[in-house]
Amino acid sequence: MEFHDRPRFPRGFRCASRNCGLKPTAKDLALFVSDTDASAAALFTRNKFPGAPIILGRETIKSGRLRAIVANSKYSNVATGERGIENARRMAAAAAKEIGATPDRVLVSSTGVIGVALPIEIIERGIIGMSGDLVDDPIVGAEGMMTTDTYAKALSVSVGAATITWVAKGSGMIEPNMATMLAYIFTDAAFDAPTIDRLLRAAVDVSFNMLSVDTDTSTSDTCAMLANGLAGSVDESAFAAALTAGCIRMTEMLARDGEGAEHLIRATVRGARSVVEARVIAKSIVNSPLIKTMVHGADPNVGRILMAVGKCTECTIPPGTTDAWINEYAVVRAGERLPFDDDIVRAAFANEVVEIVVALGAGTAAATAYGCDLTKGYIAENASYYSS
Amino acid sequence: MEFHDRPRFPRGFRCASRNCGLKPTAKDLALFVSDTDASAAALFTRNKFPGAPIILGRETIKSGRLRAIVANSKYSNVATGERGIENARRMAAAAAKEIGATPDRVLVSSTGVIGVALPIEIIERGIIGMSGDLVDDPIVGAEGMMTTDTYAKALSVSVGAATITWVAKGSGMIEPNMATMLAYIFTDAAFDAPTIDRLLRAAVDVSFNMLSVDTDTSTSDTCAMLANGLAGSVDESAFAAALTAGCIRMTEMLARDGEGAEHLIRATVRGARSVVEARVIAKSIVNSPLIKTMVHGADPNVGRILMAVGKCTECTIPPGTTDAWINEYAVVRAGERLPFDDDIVRAAFANEVVEIVVALGAGTAAATAYGCDLTKGYIAENASYYSS
Repeated sequence: MEFHDRPRFPRGFRCASRNCGLKPTAKDLALFVSDTDASAAALFTRNKFPGAPIILGRETIKSGRLRAIVANSKYSNVATGERGIENARRMAAAAAKEIGATPDRVLVSSTGVIGVALPIEIIERGIIGMSGDLVDDPIVGAEGMMTTDTYAKALSVSVGAATITWVAKGSGMIEPNMATMLAYIFTDAAFDAPTIDRLLRAAVDVSFNMLSVDTDTSTSDTCAMLANGLAGSVDESAFAAALTAGCIRMTEMLARDGEGAEHLIRATVRGARSVVEARVIAKSIVNSPLIKTMVHGADPNVGRILMAVGKCTECTIPPGTTDAWINEYAVVRAGERLPFDDDIVRAAFANEVVEIVVALGAGTAAATAYGCDLTKGYIAENASYYSS
Repeated sequence: MEFHDRPRFPRGFRCASRNCGLKPTAKDLALFVSDTDASAAALFTRNKFPGAPIILGRETIKSGRLRAIVANSKYSNVATGERGIENARRMAAAAAKEIGATPDRVLVSSTGVIGVALPIEIIERGIIGMSGDLVDDPIVGAEGMMTTDTYAKALSVSVGAATITWVAKGSGMIEPNMATMLAYIFTDAAFDAPTIDRLLRAAVDVSFNMLSVDTDTSTSDTCAMLANGLAGSVDESAFAAALTAGCIRMTEMLARDGEGAEHLIRATVRGARSVVEARVIAKSIVNSPLIKTMVHGADPNVGRILMAVGKCTECTIPPGTTDAWINEYAVVRAGERLPFDDDIVRAAFANEVVEIVVALGAGTAAATAYGCDLTKGYIAENASYYSS
């Protein structure tokens, strides 16, 4: 499967973005439109303080039909009470009016500072005229969603006659749980809403749900998929494989662009007793601050891998059969550190992609988690996110 | 209860420390001795890759009797296989010989880099003559245990005719589970080993087990308590209260001296459905990188408190009744952010101690967790711990 060199939309999808005045000059508003009603599914954060757009979105997605998604950055519309819900509804209504649809066909996303009222009049004014700006370049929409992302993220791939396109933003407060930051997936393949929902859940399970930048689960996470059917039927297995591959690729892009990150860390755990345990241990590796700083500093302190595995005290971990590799170089065998060459490990850590593989010898289950290193950049960004 | 201005030992306990050559010049070896056999209990890390001293220590403590503790820093003797166990035994034997006891009465601790063989000959040579250096100042012993600690940590308090003395080290790879980093507690009160064990578990449960510097559970955690009985019987309730208070105070000292830390963060959750849930949520607050960086930067981005509470998706959290305070200043009421004064919150975060209180309105249970802010200092220390 080859991703397109330059991401493009499936037939019948377009987007626009602009600065509406929430930020001084950067883009802060994005609109994604399907020319026709699309089958749709969406997964949302499981955080117990979901934002107003999540509360509204859970209601909207029940119909399994969407025409558009409207998203703003800078303010997340979380912890804003009844007025927040009302503002999310006004945002959907403004987008619906702009494209000639009904508000119940518009999904709303807001990300940014928690607990500040949405300046809804500014957004409503900003939406006016966006239908005249619609283009078929998904990067344009991605630009309108960015917060601390360092670049706009989009991907696309062909499956038979159909196309699948991913548009997403990161990049902090990310350990998705049942859903993820903002990730939108568009396709012109024809599937009904229950099928879209099933395929999306399966793909998210091994991709966005295995991503962690900083262990913090956002109150605004949304992953939505729209299928407008303009390309007709495609083989479901081929579609599911492409969907999963693209979700994993986008997960890696989000991890690599985690706040302050300089490396993608991919942790694979094999030989686990169960998939659940493999997932817990793989997540423990990418979430360990001591693993993250070790990779950042290219410090061959690989005993920390055993620490991060061993702290999963509820899992079956036989110390005597645990092996580990860093970018295919063996560093632990049978629970003991091998007398490896420090310089080879340092060189492995210097790669942009650092792959840590742990084989437990406890069973046959495996899982992979995606994360990034922890740098002073993360701290600089998050020590003044609200004030700056 | 008043801690002594200058920590001192109970009757019959002394210690010594020195540089034996593991580090260039800093102290790297500590010896704590009771003149007589003491009743003893110990809790160890639940990490699945326990160090050799932990494996040996679990065997040693079964008798409920100890005469001495010997500890080195720089190398943790973890992931070192059978040879590691043998080296831990040799360390116990060397200390036993030096003080005229048997090896089964000596508890061994090693902390530092994981996966490097212990230079046992250097340690054996270093132990020789330490019995001539024994003094009654617990700070001297604490100095020999330090790794990245910025100062040597000891406390003492009187209970009736008895004294309780705590000696501990921090300061990274700390989220103890059933035990903690290295914390030794000495008393001349008379209690048998089962009582010491019961009292220690109860105190650790609300103190060291609620401490997290970085969510990483060390492979070397040990908390041991020795009671030599020289002061005779003391009231058990008064003793338990003093023991718990001292463990909490030492926990706060360890959190405040977490690697790179500039603030102690104390998170109290009230109104939870159960103590287990209160503990999970309080830990989630002190473990959130976004809370930690917010405190570090004195950035009044307090919506993050709701995020950190709400990501405990398995807990009962009614958004509509959740309130929050920072150093007694109300910032959230009924799940909504109050229109607070940013400057008051900034000033609260400027305090060395930042107390976050969350009231859930879900029940009557409460718990307190202890942590610290996340700074560039943590990253600097841990990106080159092995190499430097």
